[in-house]
Amino acid sequence: MVESWSSFDTVESNFRPLVVIELAKDTKEETIEWLTKRIVDKKADGGAQLLIKPLVMENGVENIYLVGASHLRLLLGAETVGLVKECSDNSMRAFTYSSRKTFKHFADDNHDFLTMAECQYIIKHELENLRAKNEKMIPGYPQAKLYPGKSIVRRLLTSGILVQIFPLHDREELKKLSHSWYGRVKVGYQPLDDIRCYFGETIALYFGFLEYFTFALIPMAVIGIPYYVFAWEDYDKYVMFATFNLLWSTVILEVWKRICAILTYRWGTLLMKRQFEEPRPGFHGVLGINPVTGREEPVYSSIKRQLRIYLVSLPFVCLCLYFSLYVMMIYFDLEQWALDYHNENESNFSSLMLYVPSIIYAVVIEIMNRIYRYAAEFLTSWENHRLESSYQNHLILKVLVFNFLNCFASLFYIAFVLFDMKLLRQSLATLLITSQILNQFAESLLPYWLQKRYNRRMKKGVCSKKTDTDLSLAEQVNMEKEMGTYLGTFDDYLELFLQFGYVSLFSCVYPLAAVFAVLNNITEIYSDALKMCRVYKRPFAEPTANIGVWQLAFETMSVISVVTNCILIGMSPQVDALFPDSKMDLVLTVALVEHLLLAIKFIMAFVIPDKPRDIQTKLAKLEFESLEALKQQVRVFQMQLHFLLIHH
Amino acid sequence: MVESWSSFDTVESNFRPLVVIELAKDTKEETIEWLTKRIVDKKADGGAQLLIKPLVMENGVENIYLVGASHLRLLLGAETVGLVKECSDNSMRAFTYSSRKTFKHFADDNHDFLTMAECQYIIKHELENLRAKNEKMIPGYPQAKLYPGKSIVRRLLTSGILVQIFPLHDREELKKLSHSWYGRVKVGYQPLDDIRCYFGETIALYFGFLEYFTFALIPMAVIGIPYYVFAWEDYDKYVMFATFNLLWSTVILEVWKRICAILTYRWGTLLMKRQFEEPRPGFHGVLGINPVTGREEPVYSSIKRQLRIYLVSLPFVCLCLYFSLYVMMIYFDLEQWALDYHNENESNFSSLMLYVPSIIYAVVIEIMNRIYRYAAEFLTSWENHRLESSYQNHLILKVLVFNFLNCFASLFYIAFVLFDMKLLRQSLATLLITSQILNQFAESLLPYWLQKRYNRRMKKGVCSKKTDTDLSLAEQVNMEKEMGTYLGTFDDYLELFLQFGYVSLFSCVYPLAAVFAVLNNITEIYSDALKMCRVYKRPFAEPTANIGVWQLAFETMSVISVVTNCILIGMSPQVDALFPDSKMDLVLTVALVEHLLLAIKFIMAFVIPDKPRDIQTKLAKLEFESLEALKQQVRVFQMQLHFLLIHH
Repeated sequence: MVESWSSFDTVESNFRPLVVIELAKDTKEETIEWLTKRIVDKKADGGAQLLIKPLVMENGVENIYLVGASHLRLLLGAETVGLVKECSDNSMRAFTYSSRKTFKHFADDNHDFLTMAECQYIIKHELENLRAKNEKMIPGYPQAKLYPGKSIVRRLLTSGILVQIFPLHDREELKKLSHSWYGRVKVGYQPLDDIRCYFGETIALYFGFLEYFTFALIPMAVIGIPYYVFAWEDYDKYVMFATFNLLWSTVILEVWKRICAILTYRWGTLLMKRQFEEPRPGFHGVLGINPVTGREEPVYSSIKRQLRIYLVSLPFVCLCLYFSLYVMMIYFDLEQWALDYHNENESNFSSLMLYVPSIIYAVVIEIMNRIYRYAAEFLTSWENHRLESSYQNHLILKVLVFNFLNCFASLFYIAFVLFDMKLLRQSLATLLITSQILNQFAESLLPYWLQKRYNRRMKKGVCSKKTDTDLSLAEQVNMEKEMGTYLGTFDDYLELFLQFGYVSLFSCVYPLAAVFAVLNNITEIYSDALKMCRVYKRPFAEPTANIGVWQLAFETMSVISVVTNCILIGMSPQVDALFPDSKMDLVLTVALVEHLLLAIKFIMAFVIPDKPRDIQTKLAKLEFESLEALKQQVRVFQMQLHFLLIHH
Repeated sequence: MVESWSSFDTVESNFRPLVVIELAKDTKEETIEWLTKRIVDKKADGGAQLLIKPLVMENGVENIYLVGASHLRLLLGAETVGLVKECSDNSMRAFTYSSRKTFKHFADDNHDFLTMAECQYIIKHELENLRAKNEKMIPGYPQAKLYPGKSIVRRLLTSGILVQIFPLHDREELKKLSHSWYGRVKVGYQPLDDIRCYFGETIALYFGFLEYFTFALIPMAVIGIPYYVFAWEDYDKYVMFATFNLLWSTVILEVWKRICAILTYRWGTLLMKRQFEEPRPGFHGVLGINPVTGREEPVYSSIKRQLRIYLVSLPFVCLCLYFSLYVMMIYFDLEQWALDYHNENESNFSSLMLYVPSIIYAVVIEIMNRIYRYAAEFLTSWENHRLESSYQNHLILKVLVFNFLNCFASLFYIAFVLFDMKLLRQSLATLLITSQILNQFAESLLPYWLQKRYNRRMKKGVCSKKTDTDLSLAEQVNMEKEMGTYLGTFDDYLELFLQFGYVSLFSCVYPLAAVFAVLNNITEIYSDALKMCRVYKRPFAEPTANIGVWQLAFETMSVISVVTNCILIGMSPQVDALFPDSKMDLVLTVALVEHLLLAIKFIMAFVIPDKPRDIQTKLAKLEFESLEALKQQVRVFQMQLHFLLIHH
């Protein structure tokens, strides 16, 4: 049934390999046969109606399969997943096969109408939606149970028969993309549309946010520089800087929503209908009836989950927070010890020693964050959430709370308990710069080293070939399957979130933070781009219309920063000197200003529309059209009915 | 074409009059002919396909028409407006004629499947959507211009040819409803479902909110009574009361969302699709192309509107606010004068005089609120908003800001400038009680008097008839067309909003406010019910899924009340005495507590789901089904396509 396909006849065949399936080396023959049959079977027979061919490796092992699809199949799949494309009249519409002629650049022989990333997304969607019919188990593996409606691929993954599924790189495209992205030494915007075509919307939106955020920080950085250069310490200048920062951070977060709407409208994801969410792969429970779908599927009592969350996860998180505070106190002991040492025997070495506790603490914070991350993932997975989105929300909440406390607790302690502004400035600088260096190392130097090693290895393997694009398909697959897997944008956003905290929470004490953030983000763009193109396997494209819960996280941070900055300014000796008679008046003034700023923030967030006017008009137009179409349908039906009634 | 219809043959005819159209007395014959033709014309010919008959009055004047529709027409109309009804399997679904058999209580001869209010809503919708075809003007009235797509009824209304359209009361039903609603002297819930059937969802939801709010205030009132009885003045008791109030007000507002979801799910409006919003009747401008619909319609530049808002409306509102503050200062002068008078010649009369300024001020506030209301309506109408919703939002914002300042400015001044808690308590009590008495008078005594007068008049007119239900149709129409028009729930919500302010803003100073609010609301339910059933014309039902912008207004009020209560407690001498050494510590503690309370409020609002779990499941189920249906449709289409491809 499945033709064998040697590793050198790629060019002539009209089968275009898109997705790689790697099975376990000892997978039974009957399982492979069943799986390939299900994948190529007609949709009407419950199959995925895709093409699959084994890839014969040089060592003769046959555990890797290439999946593709006919052009027609992909177009029908695009309709199923609800892709939105641009029409000839420049409006964005959900693609349907019957209206295909109205879309821009559509031609029956134009195989570039769907981007490769879209094709791969469609194939992934079809594979994941390949569901068991009457199979009670995976043939050959009686312990891998199935029930009608269970996703076959997800069961294969959880039982270890399927090692991985990943989309293939397009070496030609990748080379073009990486050249225009980070290849040229030239200041300019990133090619976001090309990134989106190659990596999908989630990743393109992350890079869009990173770029936007960097630009947005520039005014802060520019205003911050003279404070450092001229060592301005006047209260009125600080107040101005802090007020600007607070209002600015509200404005940039609101404006981002508008830019995000513009981008995702252009990419079509703003209009994409939400698909019904299936249970996540790791979800388990006794078989029962889902009250929503009426289908048989694992059911896990919500009360049990609540108990796990409140009796295990919550105490664990609190314990971790306590531990983090404990480590912080040790840091302050160390700090005190270094200071004593410096006072006793003053020397160059001892003044250098003053910075050592902060640096050690910064490293320890990074290590704790990473360890906690694993614990949080384990716990959230153990809570057994049914939906991926609910899993993600619980994970993000756990990680954010801990990282926030872990990174900023010492700064809060220094600022509001020790009242030591000099130490605060020094700690802030050390923490920010150390964490940036650590991250740059983990994301830029490490990838660079990995790439070097990989280049060496590749040269050894294929001496005759000179560039990556000349690699044979088998060599390419073999190489890519060994690359690391990109685990999503979570860590990248988290890094930006913490950076935003360093910049905004204590901005009036250390205006230079924005400068470091800008510098870091510029290199971050390059190192992240390198990481995406060179270090990791190509990730599947994920359509998305916004940055999700991160918008809320950034907004919360900017609210907290209003409070901290107001207190800091109120505590500064210059402001103090303004109210010589009564401390009361000072505190009341600060409280009043803080409430005013918060009120202005909320009013601004309310007044600035989330979508630009032209996008609003376009969306209204689409909604109007669909309502009209519905009405038309009702009208036609009513006319037919009247006709019938009259003639009987 | 239109049969004449005398006023006494209602019982035998199968034409059921639902809606009354009153034309101007001197309307030209050709206009009437054209209008009735358009109303009875087939949908296919651009008509409304309704039934219309003139009502011959005793004095022979023929300017009143009765509109009805066939049962089939109403069912098809129910599909057009998107009514959601209960199915036989207890789920709620959008009604379609083709699936009519699956709905509960549906039978082809059951004319009660749609309630009378629903039928009237459908007729109103169809009349308003009766649009000009090629008419350039209303026949007989060259100055009343039309353009293709313009709603005929709206043009008739704005040019004064159509005096009014209103739905008929159902005397039988009304009697039953008023008996179960306010006829029995019995404590119990209101018959919300019956109210909804008779008056529609908007009004039923108002009464539901009023009832819920009254119940929600009872705990506050119960806890407040001992403070008054035992004259508790301990700070810890006040703190407890205020804290309870603040958290309680958050909880009740969150829980209301859930109750609202339960009610509107049962009524079907939670699932109703939003209809496309047409321009409001008063909107005018030069004819242009609407970018959304692509239709010809009046266009008014958004910049001109913005200029009107920011250059005229905003300064005017500010001026009004200034004037209101000016009046407040006069009140304080009066207050001072009364106090001086009391101190000079102490007597019973003089101590009574102490209350006079507050009472006068309360009356003046009410008068100013009402005058401002007219000005705000005029201005907002002059701003020429295209959509009714945008008009409403601008009106509500204008009115809320002014009423808030007008009602509460003096209390803020007394509390935070004069620091006079005794005067605050006295002013609060006077304002609250006076405004309640005034409102009760305007809503209960006045209606009662009106009803008396109307009864007398009716008795004079029809001596033989004893009860309202025996009235002839012509008598009924004649009577109802003279009744006042109910202008919507705006004023009723506004009254509740201000009451909520009186209760929550200074609750820790005057715990008895909640008691007065509860007492007022109980009579309010009765007087509002009387008003709806007896005083006003029956209003058209308006489907709605929530209380809209009022939810936001109440939530904002509860945030402001956190701030005011914290400050009040901080200022109380008992709390002051706790921090004898340092005022600073006191202020800092108060600020800390305030921030904590606000944080708890926001977390609670975030954690409490807006919809109960079972409603969520039901909604998810419906969404799942519609997605499945769509998929099924795509699948059938794909199969047909494959079949075609195979056989060619």
